[in-house]
Amino acid sequence: MHRAGYLESPTFAYETWGELNEARDNAVLIFTGLSPSAHASSCAVDPTPGWWEEMIGSQLPIDTDRYFVICVNSLGSCFGTTGPASVNPETGKRYRLSFPILTLEDVSDSTHYVVQQLGVEVLHTVVGCSMGGMSGLAFCLRHPEAVRNFVSISSGTRAMPFSIAVRSLQREMIRSDPKWKKGNYDVGDPPITGQRLARKLGMITYRSAEEWAQRFGRERSTTHSRIEDQFVPEFSVESYLENHGRKFTGAFDPNCYLYLSHASDLFDLAEYGGSLAAGFKRLDLERALVIGVRTDILFPPEQQRELAEGIASVCTDTQLAELDCIRGHDSFLVDMDAFRPVIWDFLA
Amino acid sequence: MHRAGYLESPTFAYETWGELNEARDNAVLIFTGLSPSAHASSCAVDPTPGWWEEMIGSQLPIDTDRYFVICVNSLGSCFGTTGPASVNPETGKRYRLSFPILTLEDVSDSTHYVVQQLGVEVLHTVVGCSMGGMSGLAFCLRHPEAVRNFVSISSGTRAMPFSIAVRSLQREMIRSDPKWKKGNYDVGDPPITGQRLARKLGMITYRSAEEWAQRFGRERSTTHSRIEDQFVPEFSVESYLENHGRKFTGAFDPNCYLYLSHASDLFDLAEYGGSLAAGFKRLDLERALVIGVRTDILFPPEQQRELAEGIASVCTDTQLAELDCIRGHDSFLVDMDAFRPVIWDFLA
Repeated sequence: MHRAGYLESPTFAYETWGELNEARDNAVLIFTGLSPSAHASSCAVDPTPGWWEEMIGSQLPIDTDRYFVICVNSLGSCFGTTGPASVNPETGKRYRLSFPILTLEDVSDSTHYVVQQLGVEVLHTVVGCSMGGMSGLAFCLRHPEAVRNFVSISSGTRAMPFSIAVRSLQREMIRSDPKWKKGNYDVGDPPITGQRLARKLGMITYRSAEEWAQRFGRERSTTHSRIEDQFVPEFSVESYLENHGRKFTGAFDPNCYLYLSHASDLFDLAEYGGSLAAGFKRLDLERALVIGVRTDILFPPEQQRELAEGIASVCTDTQLAELDCIRGHDSFLVDMDAFRPVIWDFLA
Repeated sequence: MHRAGYLESPTFAYETWGELNEARDNAVLIFTGLSPSAHASSCAVDPTPGWWEEMIGSQLPIDTDRYFVICVNSLGSCFGTTGPASVNPETGKRYRLSFPILTLEDVSDSTHYVVQQLGVEVLHTVVGCSMGGMSGLAFCLRHPEAVRNFVSISSGTRAMPFSIAVRSLQREMIRSDPKWKKGNYDVGDPPITGQRLARKLGMITYRSAEEWAQRFGRERSTTHSRIEDQFVPEFSVESYLENHGRKFTGAFDPNCYLYLSHASDLFDLAEYGGSLAAGFKRLDLERALVIGVRTDILFPPEQQRELAEGIASVCTDTQLAELDCIRGHDSFLVDMDAFRPVIWDFLA
């Protein structure tokens, strides 16, 4: 691992769509955000819609008629790839907090290994969303010979203190739940209270105040008059958060969440040579596209411009697309009409 | 109480500075934010610095050589005024969650009573900060004969869903702490974990990403290499939050916090007549000043403009001061050089 330690025989879950061509030069690799699995789009084996169903497919921006598309579940996650919730083959027990400190360098390097196993030496394009944008940047820095083009979506060169503060607090919410038990939680009784709180804070930072003002205003889902009801959700925005909080808690392992969240804080392009400028110099790209959203508070527009200008200093053919979406950081998942044309143009 | 219920013989803690003149027309009333006490400035009895020490005093913007300044600890708080932590004289036990639902109308009306007891029929100016801006607006709506001028600082006509979501989550953090015990927490062992989490989320929304980027960047307070240390604060912004979280937990009663936080969500100018426009029509002010800060995410600049334009529709002499402070919502407490001149000019 990048910091210290090793993993014995890790497993990787991945999905692919389309066909690798004879020249082996049509592969597109997608790095995910913190929580998605490798199931970015439906396929014959798993026809359920993927998390980026409207982006990947025949005649869609990441066109599976032309490209061989790969998505790998990140190292440290819990959807088939080895992570803190996996059994350590050396002990026969779950890793939990004995899992080594995870970095996005580990995510990048392990994904590079998977891609090579698939017979791909050089990727046509690496696409990374949110945390995946930093994993993708790590990939481009550490394996410059293995990638020609890079698309960063709602990401940046590194986490800034507002985002670090938010993620640190999310982790503390989970760690503060007595059921977490320093990572040794009972699998049948996980720290869902802490996870629900963390997810709600996530949603507050993934969307935008502007969207919610339009969407919810001060609409009530119910009105309380009894004292004993006063802290039950009353405003529609509270019910919305409650629904999102509940959905997530069953779906993600709390320890995996802690590791991936922490890895997001640790990544810093400036560690490559001592400054951002030095880091950018290590890139060797033909073309790049940086997409950001005006209302994103986790990776705000200034960070999009910083990333685009930095890549442009070493790669002339770099575009910055600042989208006027109101749904904040999550726009790349929910405002497809805004994102599709930009990615379509880049890959066309 | 505004919603339902009553309080038997409530107590009010207040402080005053300066002298009421013979015409009884030089009184300035200050409504506080959620957490401060009535100790806005030092005085002979209590020489410790108040929470607005640099604003109130001889030759300061709220000039005690000219004005008789009053600050009342809000109803529902825990610094001398009756609130959920107080003993109910009818039962001999603390109110806790038997305290009636609190609204800012109750804060306004009870403060009006205190002011009358002090011999003041008409206030020269009502000044309200943050939550206190809405309490002050409630005062101007409900007691128009008792106030001539109004200063709203980093507040608004009502809470919007982003702020409601944040406060609702803060309340849930406290309620989720097993030590809260549905309000019946052990006084010697309060839910400090939930309070610390809530305070940290508070700090994230009281300041700004821009300030923290400048102030902390990615500075470390320590660097971890051992797995077991990985979730201990490492970045300076995490240590900063930890310090703020710890300071607050001993200082504020968790039930009082829940009630005042909820009251902030409930207030809505549009309840006065069915719309904001109708609400504004109930005001009868000579002059008004609305101060807001560019980087405030709890009461953002749009809300400052909405409030100023609304008051201006019924009070020609209304000014809007949009300050270019980077310290967010809390700027009125920490960026005094920006706030002093504006308040000075209004009260000169």
